[in-house]
Amino acid sequence: MDASDQTPQLTVVKRCSDCYEVVWGDGYTGRYPFVWLRDNCRCSGCYYPSSKQRSVLLSDIDVEMEPEREELIVDGQEMKIFWPDDHVSPFPSRWLYLNRFDKTNFDPVSQLVPKPWGSEQVNELLRFDYKEVMEDSRVLRDWLRSLVVSGIALLTGAPKETGVIESIGKRVGHLRTTMYGHTFEVLAIASSSNLAYTTLKLGLHVDLPLYEVPPSVQMLHCIKQCETVGGESQFCDALKVTNDLKESDPEFYNTLTRVKVDIRLRGKDYIPYHFQYARPIIELDDEGKFKAITHNNGVRAPYMNLPVADVKSWYKSLSCLDGKLNAKENMIQFKLKEGDVVTFNNNRVMHGRSSFQLAQDQDEGKKTRHLAGGYLSWDVINSSIRLLDEELDDIAIL
Amino acid sequence: MDASDQTPQLTVVKRCSDCYEVVWGDGYTGRYPFVWLRDNCRCSGCYYPSSKQRSVLLSDIDVEMEPEREELIVDGQEMKIFWPDDHVSPFPSRWLYLNRFDKTNFDPVSQLVPKPWGSEQVNELLRFDYKEVMEDSRVLRDWLRSLVVSGIALLTGAPKETGVIESIGKRVGHLRTTMYGHTFEVLAIASSSNLAYTTLKLGLHVDLPLYEVPPSVQMLHCIKQCETVGGESQFCDALKVTNDLKESDPEFYNTLTRVKVDIRLRGKDYIPYHFQYARPIIELDDEGKFKAITHNNGVRAPYMNLPVADVKSWYKSLSCLDGKLNAKENMIQFKLKEGDVVTFNNNRVMHGRSSFQLAQDQDEGKKTRHLAGGYLSWDVINSSIRLLDEELDDIAIL
Repeated sequence: MDASDQTPQLTVVKRCSDCYEVVWGDGYTGRYPFVWLRDNCRCSGCYYPSSKQRSVLLSDIDVEMEPEREELIVDGQEMKIFWPDDHVSPFPSRWLYLNRFDKTNFDPVSQLVPKPWGSEQVNELLRFDYKEVMEDSRVLRDWLRSLVVSGIALLTGAPKETGVIESIGKRVGHLRTTMYGHTFEVLAIASSSNLAYTTLKLGLHVDLPLYEVPPSVQMLHCIKQCETVGGESQFCDALKVTNDLKESDPEFYNTLTRVKVDIRLRGKDYIPYHFQYARPIIELDDEGKFKAITHNNGVRAPYMNLPVADVKSWYKSLSCLDGKLNAKENMIQFKLKEGDVVTFNNNRVMHGRSSFQLAQDQDEGKKTRHLAGGYLSWDVINSSIRLLDEELDDIAIL
Repeated sequence: MDASDQTPQLTVVKRCSDCYEVVWGDGYTGRYPFVWLRDNCRCSGCYYPSSKQRSVLLSDIDVEMEPEREELIVDGQEMKIFWPDDHVSPFPSRWLYLNRFDKTNFDPVSQLVPKPWGSEQVNELLRFDYKEVMEDSRVLRDWLRSLVVSGIALLTGAPKETGVIESIGKRVGHLRTTMYGHTFEVLAIASSSNLAYTTLKLGLHVDLPLYEVPPSVQMLHCIKQCETVGGESQFCDALKVTNDLKESDPEFYNTLTRVKVDIRLRGKDYIPYHFQYARPIIELDDEGKFKAITHNNGVRAPYMNLPVADVKSWYKSLSCLDGKLNAKENMIQFKLKEGDVVTFNNNRVMHGRSSFQLAQDQDEGKKTRHLAGGYLSWDVINSSIRLLDEELDDIAIL
């Protein structure tokens, strides 16, 4: 909470060589550089409150500019700065307090901390009622937050018909279009050429690492489930497993974070395509922390930009990781019920499927298991969480 | 060209400790590790030719596996490997040759080299006939390549009506959806709250750096142009200008490539949104080369995750860059004609607009200038170039 009435009063303003030192009623002392104040002038000529966009141009600002004088008005609720060119910049006290330079985190989303999990997660899997997600802002936010924290959650009780993925997309913002289209369908079709559309086991993988930014969150809606043996969905938390690998086999871990692997996929779905991308199997952010797993054995290209002498040790590294990903203690497995929508972080939680049988009384090519799928982007999910925070918690909009 | 008949014959196969050494008719000697050969087995049980996906699982492969024996058949056009578990792997000679380990570049797109430009570009601006782009694969490819090389090109002679952006999107693959929707319109409307929809000067900027991956290519289709003074489109090649800055002011350059700046935008268009992202003004790839300019003065957030003592020198750096970007020798300026579609790399070529006047005989709020816009992703553009290369040049599909 950052409600207006909690903002301390602005009590003293001291002019220094290139900034103001401002003292607040709660004892906090903050410094605000002159150039920053001019650049962020809140007057209607320099700033559009409706879109929160800066309209003053950088070329109109002199970096060395110094104010002529300043004023505290409205009992410390506003500070006014007078510039040599007669421009006047008003600053609400609350705004200055919220934008102070020692506030190290301005984004509520980045405060959500991912929590790694192993096979015990199958008993702790978060479930949300589909209807509540669609109607209750608080449940919607709980679900979206769980995608950041656990990386997997189940929506239950959705209609057993197409259109659910589109509705969820609209509820969050919009779906991400890929070469599969806005949504896609997973049907078991005898003699299909695409592995996903057969009844065979699908090894643990992430979807579409061939995009510069692979799909963030995947949703799979179970419209019809096979009544025969098999067809379980399998999931594994690569955040947990790569943490383990870093401990147990640091050399393998380093290889997989360093060596770029070529990925490619060629075909025709919503559009004809030939995607290529090169990236490490384990991607780290610029602080060296886990960013994404990109392992998809099916779309890994045969060609490798690697000295031939390094190939075998690279395979050893990947094989070790792959073994851990598929280990019993790291995998959860359950059979989706009709009306379930499983949602998971495609950059972290790998998914697969056990093999299953087509019912004997059905013709070849007739569907026995029908999933509809779609993708969401972090950009849109995080935006939605911020808006929900503002709505539900009276979070200040900076 | 990599046509089949140009593949040299496979003449000698020598078995080494963990690989085969293969000698070709043209004298080339290549090594192929055993584990790589097993992983890339071309038999129908291990590989789907239709989707070019690997179906053999990593867990079915022993990294230490060694073949029992090998055979050269069909006059050196195929190599067969026999494994201890009775599996047999056939490899077409041509396939082995194309996937050899000393071939350092497998992607024709990455061979296109960006060519920086200054104000002289206004005389060299590449123009393509809209109808030809839509109908002739070769012209389509020339245009797409020019987006990589020059970063800007003009399509001329398009219909002066809505729908053109959608048609181009479909021709290349599909458009990228943003919070503006699938497409957007730029109209001059008196007393609009959004800067883009006024008649004011728009400083040079990139669009939407608040996305993890900002839109790659922007297209602006001129449906109606103002007949009054002004309204020129302005462009500047930030690749050229940041190269210059690196030479002239390396300290400023380093600051702008290193310091992350907060960006945010909040509002409601196609969806309600509150985007936030932090990134440097000049982004480098992991080899330290120019990747993107992200400068948009309007959406730069007021809050900064920066020690207050570093703020002024950061402003000095940005101010210096901004001055160079807006310098006459770096900017091109021209007025779009009705039926023109200007297309440019939004990660490299910044765009702006000079102010213009509403015609006096028009009511306030009545449009005098009407542009339609849309975005394309590099993923989709590069995919399209690869498919066109395959179609036009008989490029081998690896």
